[in-house]
This record gives sequence, C-alpha cells and structure tokens, in this order.
Amino acid sequence: MSPVRVGVVGYGYWGPNVTRNLYALEACEVVMLADRNPAALQKARRTYPSLAVTTDPAEVLTAPDIDAVAIVTPVWTHYELARTALEHGKHVFVEKPFTSSSSQAEELIELAARKNLRIMVDHTFLFTGAVKKIRELIDTGALGPLLYFDSSRINLGLFQHDVSVVWDLAPHDLAIMDHVIGEKPQAVVATGGTHFGKHADIAFLTVYFPGNVLAHINVNWMSPVKVRTTLIGGREKMLVWNDLEVDEKVKVYDKGMTVTSAEGVYDLLVSYRSGDVWAPRVEQTEALKVELGYFLDCVTGGLTPLNDGAAGLRVVRMLEAADLSLDARGKVVPLS
Amino acid sequence: MSPVRVGVVGYGYWGPNVTRNLYALEACEVVMLADRNPAALQKARRTYPSLAVTTDPAEVLTAPDIDAVAIVTPVWTHYELARTALEHGKHVFVEKPFTSSSSQAEELIELAARKNLRIMVDHTFLFTGAVKKIRELIDTGALGPLLYFDSSRINLGLFQHDVSVVWDLAPHDLAIMDHVIGEKPQAVVATGGTHFGKHADIAFLTVYFPGNVLAHINVNWMSPVKVRTTLIGGREKMLVWNDLEVDEKVKVYDKGMTVTSAEGVYDLLVSYRSGDVWAPRVEQTEALKVELGYFLDCVTGGLTPLNDGAAGLRVVRMLEAADLSLDARGKVVPLS
Amino acid sequence: MSPVRVGVVGYGYWGPNVTRNLYALEACEVVMLADRNPAALQKARRTYPSLAVTTDPAEVLTAPDIDAVAIVTPVWTHYELARTALEHGKHVFVEKPFTSSSSQAEELIELAARKNLRIMVDHTFLFTGAVKKIRELIDTGALGPLLYFDSSRINLGLFQHDVSVVWDLAPHDLAIMDHVIGEKPQAVVATGGTHFGKHADIAFLTVYFPGNVLAHINVNWMSPVKVRTTLIGGREKMLVWNDLEVDEKVKVYDKGMTVTSAEGVYDLLVSYRSGDVWAPRVEQTEALKVELGYFLDCVTGGLTPLNDGAAGLRVVRMLEAADLSLDARGKVVPLS
Amino acid sequence: MSPVRVGVVGYGYWGPNVTRNLYALEACEVVMLADRNPAALQKARRTYPSLAVTTDPAEVLTAPDIDAVAIVTPVWTHYELARTALEHGKHVFVEKPFTSSSSQAEELIELAARKNLRIMVDHTFLFTGAVKKIRELIDTGALGPLLYFDSSRINLGLFQHDVSVVWDLAPHDLAIMDHVIGEKPQAVVATGGTHFGKHADIAFLTVYFPGNVLAHINVNWMSPVKVRTTLIGGREKMLVWNDLEVDEKVKVYDKGMTVTSAEGVYDLLVSYRSGDVWAPRVEQTEALKVELGYFLDCVTGGLTPLNDGAAGLRVVRMLEAADLSLDARGKVVPLS
Repeated sequence: MSPVRVGVVGYGYWGPNVTRNLYALEACEVVMLADRNPAALQKARRTYPSLAVTTDPAEVLTAPDIDAVAIVTPVWTHYELARTALEHGKHVFVEKPFTSSSSQAEELIELAARKNLRIMVDHTFLFTGAVKKIRELIDTGALGPLLYFDSSRINLGLFQHDVSVVWDLAPHDLAIMDHVIGEKPQAVVATGGTHFGKHADIAFLTVYFPGNVLAHINVNWMSPVKVRTTLIGGREKMLVWNDLEVDEKVKVYDKGMTVTSAEGVYDLLVSYRSGDVWAPRVEQTEALKVELGYFLDCVTGGLTPLNDGAAGLRVVRMLEAADLSLDARGKVVPLS
Repeated sequence: MSPVRVGVVGYGYWGPNVTRNLYALEACEVVMLADRNPAALQKARRTYPSLAVTTDPAEVLTAPDIDAVAIVTPVWTHYELARTALEHGKHVFVEKPFTSSSSQAEELIELAARKNLRIMVDHTFLFTGAVKKIRELIDTGALGPLLYFDSSRINLGLFQHDVSVVWDLAPHDLAIMDHVIGEKPQAVVATGGTHFGKHADIAFLTVYFPGNVLAHINVNWMSPVKVRTTLIGGREKMLVWNDLEVDEKVKVYDKGMTVTSAEGVYDLLVSYRSGDVWAPRVEQTEALKVELGYFLDCVTGGLTPLNDGAAGLRVVRMLEAADLSLDARGKVVPLS
Repeated sequence: MSPVRVGVVGYGYWGPNVTRNLYALEACEVVMLADRNPAALQKARRTYPSLAVTTDPAEVLTAPDIDAVAIVTPVWTHYELARTALEHGKHVFVEKPFTSSSSQAEELIELAARKNLRIMVDHTFLFTGAVKKIRELIDTGALGPLLYFDSSRINLGLFQHDVSVVWDLAPHDLAIMDHVIGEKPQAVVATGGTHFGKHADIAFLTVYFPGNVLAHINVNWMSPVKVRTTLIGGREKMLVWNDLEVDEKVKVYDKGMTVTSAEGVYDLLVSYRSGDVWAPRVEQTEALKVELGYFLDCVTGGLTPLNDGAAGLRVVRMLEAADLSLDARGKVVPLS
Repeated sequence: MSPVRVGVVGYGYWGPNVTRNLYALEACEVVMLADRNPAALQKARRTYPSLAVTTDPAEVLTAPDIDAVAIVTPVWTHYELARTALEHGKHVFVEKPFTSSSSQAEELIELAARKNLRIMVDHTFLFTGAVKKIRELIDTGALGPLLYFDSSRINLGLFQHDVSVVWDLAPHDLAIMDHVIGEKPQAVVATGGTHFGKHADIAFLTVYFPGNVLAHINVNWMSPVKVRTTLIGGREKMLVWNDLEVDEKVKVYDKGMTVTSAEGVYDLLVSYRSGDVWAPRVEQTEALKVELGYFLDCVTGGLTPLNDGAAGLRVVRMLEAADLSLDARGKVVPLS
C-alpha cells in the first residue's frame, strides 16, 4: 500500500514530537512542514534535512500531493486551518482542544462528513497503556458500577498567553473521563481564580453524570509540586492512576463498601472490605506513535476514529460550560 | 492555684482521648463522666477506677462542684448539652463542628457572654506543630500574599450515620483555613454526591475570599487511599503540608512566578523561580493536650480562646452554605 | 483450663509491651513483676494497681505459684536469670538476642530439655502478618528457588550502652532470615565501624548459604532516615517488604530472569520478564500478642515453639561470627 | 579559537549520547566515527548525514586531522584503543572503567605523560549537579567530619556478557566516593554471588578509609526495584542523595549525635539533634555535556582533568581488590 502523504502545520512545543513519530511510521511519508516562525523551520531542517518547509501554512493545506495534515498550532487557529484543509480534501489530525467553540467544531464535523474525510483530535492519553488498562477494567466490570472520577493535574507553569488553565490542562482529563465513563454528562460547575494575566490559572471542575456518577478535575499552574493523579471509585474495586510513577502507574485496590442495612437514620451500616492491591503491567509504547499509526489506519481504511470530531466536540462543550460557570463563580451549567 | 474541676460528657470515639489528656494535665481535676451507654462507662472505669460515672448527662451539667464541661458527643446534641451547661455556670469545651446550625451557635455565644463563661470549640489541628508553623510562615510574610489554599482529606470510611462527609471531615479544613487565611470568606460553592445512605459521601468545596484568594477542599469517604495534603500558594513561596509524613510534614518551596510584562494578549510573560526546598522541624507534642491546657488557661485567666464560639460559628456558617450549595448542585452561596 | 501464671522480669523499654499483652490474654494470669528500678515499678503500679511488684528478680524466678517467666532485660543478664528460672521449674520467654554467647545458649537449652521446660526467644517479627506472608510465598514455591535476601534496618539511634549495632538490630533480620530461608548458613562476613563509644555503630553482614543463596544485612544507628526494607529475590518472582508502609508492606513483583543461552562468553543471553505487581493483604494483629498467646499454648500443650532455644542459638552463633569478622575487618568466619 | 577535532570509537549504548553532546558543543568538530557494527554506523548516518564513518577503529585512531578521540567501547578494548590513540598523538576521552587492569592504566598514564597528552575517564556523575553540591557540602565543612558513605545501585539487569556487576555498576559509586571523600582508601572487602553466567550479579563492597571513615556499595542486577540512593553521614549533618527523585535529589538533614559522656561502659550518653531538612537546588544541566566541554577545555588549555588517568586508575585498583576479595568470599584486601 502506498504511504499516506502527510503535511505538518506547526513546529512549536508539540510539533516536533508529532513530526518525529510520523517519520518513524512506515505507512507515512512526511511531505511538507509549515511554521510562521523561520527559526522553527531552521530547527526542523537540522533534524530532517530533506523536508520541504514553508512559512505559509496555506501551501501545506492546499498542496495537491498531500493526503492528510497534522495541525499542531494554538487552539484559536485550529478552525481556519482545519476548514481550509478539509475544503482541499485533506484528512485532519488536530491538536486538542479541537476548536475554540462548539459551533466551530460542529461546522468542521459537518464539512468532513460531507467530504467523507476523517478528523482525529489529538487526545493522546487515550492511547497510553494506563488509560487502555483503565478502560478495560471498567468495561469488563472489574470495578463494578462507577461512583466517581477525581483527577489532579497541577504543576508550576507553563502559563499560556492565550488560554486559561482550563483550556490548557483540563482537555486531557475531560477526554480521558469522556472515554472511560462513556456516558453523556449532565452539567458542569467550575470555580477558580485569576492571579496573573487575564485567564484563570487555577480551577476546579465538577461534571455531573447520570446515575449519580461524579467527576472532578483539579487544574493549577501555580503548584510547587507536579501531580498527575486520578482516582476512580467503583462499587467493587477502586483504582489510583499516578502517571508520574515509572513502574506502577495503575493500582487496583480490592476495597469497597456494602450497605448492610439502612432502615432508619441510625441503622445505616456500611461495611468495608479491604483486600489485595494489584498493579497490572501496562504497555510502555509511546502513546503518540500508537495514535498516529491509528490515524493513518483510519485514513487508509475509511474508519471513524474513537477520538473523532465528535469526541473533540464533547470536550469543547464541557470547556465552554466550564467557562460560563467560572465567570459566574460556580453557577451550574447544564449540558444539553 | 486550685485545679479546674472538669466533667466529661461522651466516651465514644474521641471522648477517651479528651479524658486521657485531661487526666495528664496538672491544672485539671476530672470529676465526673457521663455517657448514655453503660458499656462505655464500664470501659472508662477500667482505666480510671476512681472516676465517678453516670448515664445521665444532666448530672454532670448541673453538678455544683464542676467548673467546666467537655462535650464530646455527636453534633446534633451539642446545643442542648452546651446550653444546659452554660445555664448552670459551666465553661464549655465542645467537639467540632460547634452546633448543627448557626442560630444555635449564636444563641450559645450570647448566653456565654451574658454569663461571662468561656466556649472553646475543639479545632484540634490549630494546636499541631504543622499548623502553628504554617500560620507563622504566613504571618511573617515568608510566603508573600496568598494565592490559594487547596486541601484533600480523603480515605475509606468511616461513614457517619447522622452527618454528611462535609460535616464530618471538612470542619478540620475549614477551621485550619479560617485560622491561617484570617480573612472573611465571601461565598461558598459545593458539589458532591450521595451513594450510600442519605448524606453526601464525596464533596468538593470552593470558598472565595477577598483579594482573589481561593480555597478548595476535597473530602471523600470512598477513596482507596488515605490522603491528608494541603497546598498553600503564596506569591513568594509555596508550601505542601502532608500530614501523613512522619518526619517532613511541612515543605516550603522557594518557587514563584513573576509577571515580567503584560502589555497585550501575547505579551504576558510569566517567569518562574525555582530554588531550594526546606522542611522546617515542627513540634511533635500531642495537639489535643496543648489545646486542653490552653482551655484550662482560658478558664482560669478569663481569656478568650482563639478557637472560641465565634470561630466555631464561622465554620458552621460555611458548612450551612455548603449544604445549600450541595443541594442545588453547585449554586454560589454568598456569606453575609 | 486454669490460666498460665506468669512472672515478668524487667519493665524498661519493651517490658511494658510484654506485660500489656500478657494482661490482654485470657489464658494468662500475671502474678508478679520485678525490676531493680523502683521508678519502673511505680509506673507499672499506676497501670496495674493490683500487680505484686519487687525489686528482687529472684522473688519472681523462684516463686512457687509461677509457671513461666518473661525475661525482658538486657542481654548480658539473660543467662543468669533464665538459668535460675529453669532451675526452679519455670518455662522461659526471653528477649532477643537469647544470650551473650553460644555456650550460654547451649547450656540453657540442655537444662530446659532435662527439666522438660519450654524456652521461647522473642523473635517478634516471625509473628507479623508480613513475615508470615513471606514465609508462605517461599514455602509454596511462588518465588521459585531463592537467590538472595537483602535487608536494611537503619535509623538515628538509639545507641545502646552495652552492645553494638549488630547485637541490637541484626537479631531481627537474622531471625527472619533463619525463618524464611530455612537453611543452615555456611559463613559470615561482617564489616563496619565504631564512631561513638566502644561498639560498632554501623555494620554490614553477609551470610553465605548453600546453593549460592546470599543474605546481606545493613544496620546503622547513624542514618538520617529510617529504613526497614527487605528485598528477597527468587528465580520466579521477587518481593520487597517495606515495614514502614502502612498499607502495602509486601509487594510481589512478577519479574525474573531466564538464561536463554550460555555457550560462550559472548553468548550469555539473559532475558527479563516484567509483569504485574501485587500487594497481598497481610494480617494486622499485634505480633507480640500473637507470639505470647503461642507461648502460652506451647507451655500448656508441651509443644516446641518454632522460635525455641535452638532458633535463639542459631542467631547467637551468627552474631558471634559477625563479631569475629568485624574485629578482623571482614574476615570470612565459617559456621560449623 | 579553532575547534577541537574529535573522532569517536563505538556507537553502541552510550556512544550516541557522547556523539550527540559533542555535536552540541561549539568548541568541537566531530570528524569521524568508527564502529565494527555496520548497523550502528547506519543508525549514526541517519542522524548525522555528513559524518564520516568506518568499521575500522584504526582509521580514527591514526587520522592526522583528529586531535582527540572518544573511546566508547567495552572495557576489555580500552587499553589497545587508547594506546594506539596516544601513540598517534591523540588526547583520549575513555569510558569507565578506565582499563581492565591497573597495569594497563599505569602504562597509559605514563604514555600520555611522555607525549604530553590528556586522558579523561568518563566518570560522568562527577559532573552532575547533585555530586557537585555534595562535594561542596563536604568541602565547606557543612557536614562536619565524615562518618560513612553508603550507596545502593540496584535494578533488574542489564546483565553484561563480559564483566561482573561490580565492574558494571560499582565504578560509578567508586568514582563518586573517590571524589567526595578525597582520601586514600586502605582496604576493600567484597562479598557477592553468581547466579546467571560466569560473573557476579550481586555484590557488596566495603572500603575502609583512614580516620574510621567507612564506605559501602550495594550493586545488584537482580532487584525488582530500581534504587539509586547514597547516604552520607557527617558529624554535623547527614545527607541522602536519591538520584531517582526529579526535584529533590539531595536532602540535607540537620541531624547528628554528640557523645555527652563516656566515662564507663554504662555512662556513654549519646544525644541526638534533629532539626530542619533542606533540599538545595541542584543544577539540571546534562552532566555528559558539561564533562565533554571540560574535556575540550583541558585539551585546549593543557589542563589536567580532575577525572584524569590517575582517577581512573584509583577506581580500577579498587575493582581489582574487590575481585580478589569476592573470589575469596570476603577476604580483606589491602590497597597499597
């Protein structure tokens, strides 16, 4: 099969990783790279001397010999770039968050459908060994019915110029949450604060799901310590995912509660079970490489990715709701 | 000086600790113990063979030879017991949370004022070496102006029959927060869920303070792991208090951010400073003993405790606001 | 069945724990306590007002109404006290290390055999949930053939006046090692140093076992951090026991090596297997209570304890060998 | 100043790191690379398309336009390669351990002296921020007189075909120890075992220094967990260096002991001091880059590196002594 011809737009913080992994995939031929910053292009040329480069993204987005583009730029540019690419018949791999607004996302999804093109939103974490294992534990019922999802993603900086900590860090957790819970969220509450610049630099999101499932996300650019921890409680078992652990990222606790009687106010008797702890081995492959290989498969095979435009849209809708709630200091914002 | 004659009401989970520490204090004479449960009294008699015991709290609350009572019972009994004690001229040491409602708390405070008696609410953590050190670091300006306070107090159980996880666990954090921030909170937002019984078993509180200071409290009875961690961010330094650490409970990070320019959207430049980490030695004395000694001092010297009825009332008001917010799935509840 | 009548000699650091646990056992009646220090006796009387006390150990060791004695005194007194007790027909529970020399231990063992009395040496760790689980994992073959045992027991102080860090801390590890390896050691090498006083305050022991099994013990009174960690490597699995962990003391690693070829110097190919990690739940009961209950059972039922005089002697022989080796800066000392 | 022209021999595990860092240094021009394995050369060419490569090391070692060579090959090849390079007037940067024997090392040192050429042995750790900070803490007297050095370097694999775990892992610790203690060691004791192949796969080294300073090194290829921890005890302060920590690699404990009296056996009173803990910020630059820059400086400026041939020889002598001791199951081997 002839390789998918890919163009890359953006060679800032994440672009080099996307490019490096595309180069490593045999099913892919990297054709051209665009970045408005000549210094970025120069850096790219040092690593890939034969790569065609340009400061004009349109060259990549409209090139006739390109099948798909990877858009690795700030979120406020996604809509324009993706629309141009789709209009010129290119499949699109785009950084998270998908777009700056849900209406933009809806428009791109419709355009791609009309043109029969794929959109994949770079929800990289879905392709890590840890998230795959967590999804498997939930899908097979090992945890039992879910109770809650509680995630912390905090560290010192990097402050973004153009977005809040919610749009910068929470998309990771929202995409993971969307993927492993697999239910439609009902409402969002967000609280937080702005201390430097114009955007929130600390925020706490609560997402309500049907069946009394609760999700909470703690994002913070001003923490002295880096934390990447998610607790997931089920009625049968519970798990802790610490992404900073090298070897035992996911730990499953054979712990749970049973209501043994609840006749009156004083009769509630919750009994606890506390058993073994188990750290299943999780795949160690680079998630981005797995994801990009899957993107190429979807392009070649005409498959709909699990992290398609619709998944991207779901995350953007929650981000919009969080913004509304945050502005009103914690108002409940229903998701239709 | 003759010792303060103290009666104890309640010998359940915490009562034995209060009693043991009162016995250890020379300035105190433990005169009588009441508990409705004869088994509890029997247990007490094994340890303190000479202690007078009764199943009728009124005996303690009205005894003419008792100067002060320690009320170590469930929160819904505090008001009645404390009122009776005050009416009979006894100083009151009472478990946290102070009362079931702010109106009860206000009534007790007024009664004590009228009778010139002391009320102390058992906010034990204020007397730990860790909280004293944190207060000192804030008061001396070592942290710089505060940015946020973010606390997690989660573990498996113990479910309470009569109160939610908010009334059970959050009073600790609210009392500490009240003590170290020292400002009047403006509003509370609480989200959470109820999975077993009638009361919330997981909750997330945000408390807004003037000057853009934000507090967040995560309480959960359904966590597979025990966490007792508080992050406090200041403009100059930041600290992490991990109460489960044996030796280095409080760590101070010489880390911070400076806005070096903020002219336009793209001009915000936040620079980071990352220096040494320092774990100051903190006192290891038993906090409850220190606190009860201080109670005796306040009784003898006619001093107003820092954890007086007013401090207890401030915590109860936040708990009430949290309940209102929780019932409305995250409504902003202003604190007058 | 009538309870075993026990006398206790020694109420210093560990004596109160032995006494408290004996009191808690229904099969036991604590008859008398001896300690040369009147202050220690006074302290005991406050807790056990009805307990007969004496400053003369002989009173306990020779009392006609006492069936067994617990000797909880410094090691240099064990031989005299135990011999007197045995001569007067008492069963003996004695602190570790058993005696100051192997000849003393041999004499006591012979005397007890002649009089048909039990000796139990207080190797408390054998009765912890962790060591029971480790022994079970080895006995059932879960770890495969053993490769090594590597233990660290280090902290700041407490310096002993009368013994080295080897005699103070290593008996724990030697007793555990003896119990879980279950083979006769061949030789001991010890290195170390003396910086304060006359006895070694840091030492490293290597014990050679048949079949190329190697044990290593690191003991140190001058460490800024407390470590209680034992690694045990087997051909099938490996484990780490961290006794300072509250919840996951024993972790079993499904890791191992296989030699896939070894034809020439460059052909050795060791392949690694790395699978799940598993923290089995271990019993949380107080080991000393379990051990003392077992002592009473052995006395009543005429059973030979697993931690009998012979077990104590095996540890003393290794300590003697370690002393010889240490004095010669690391000479190999064979164990006959 | 014209750049130093460097040739590299060996592009296996570590060679790519050396090459990458040489390329990053402006004072250096990488002229040629040799590796007997064509696949390695092909890999190098993909990254450095313009680099001249050869399967014959002699081409690099004798090339007239090369000033210095980096020898990044197995230890048994060092002597031949380094000798040829020196004979052809090249300065030499060589992997640790320096040579397979002390006589080889002595010969190379003498040859370099005669030819006025530099030898640098790649003791990379000396150029880490952590070791620099530790050396500084010792040199400035902050720790007080040293008591001991205790290092663990254990993990699962990688088994080496041609050397034991002692020659593979201990050179790191021996080089660090040599650097920070700065005294001539007196004797070595090594114990250990061989379970797979022909070489020891677990070993424990004790090195005796004057003034009762003791060093201990624990190396193990069969550990289920990776440990990289060094404890250094001084009379004033103590430190723990955990190289696996990302942020707080070095912690200094204000802990110590004082002998307050030592008149008789029972009069020894050691008192403990326990104060703050402090994690100084350490440099985060890549050590290998710093070291290679220093190599170029030494070459250009005619300076003797601190990690010169003599430093390499000191490490090799301890390795030889350890081998002798290991073969004799722990004999004391004096260092002349």
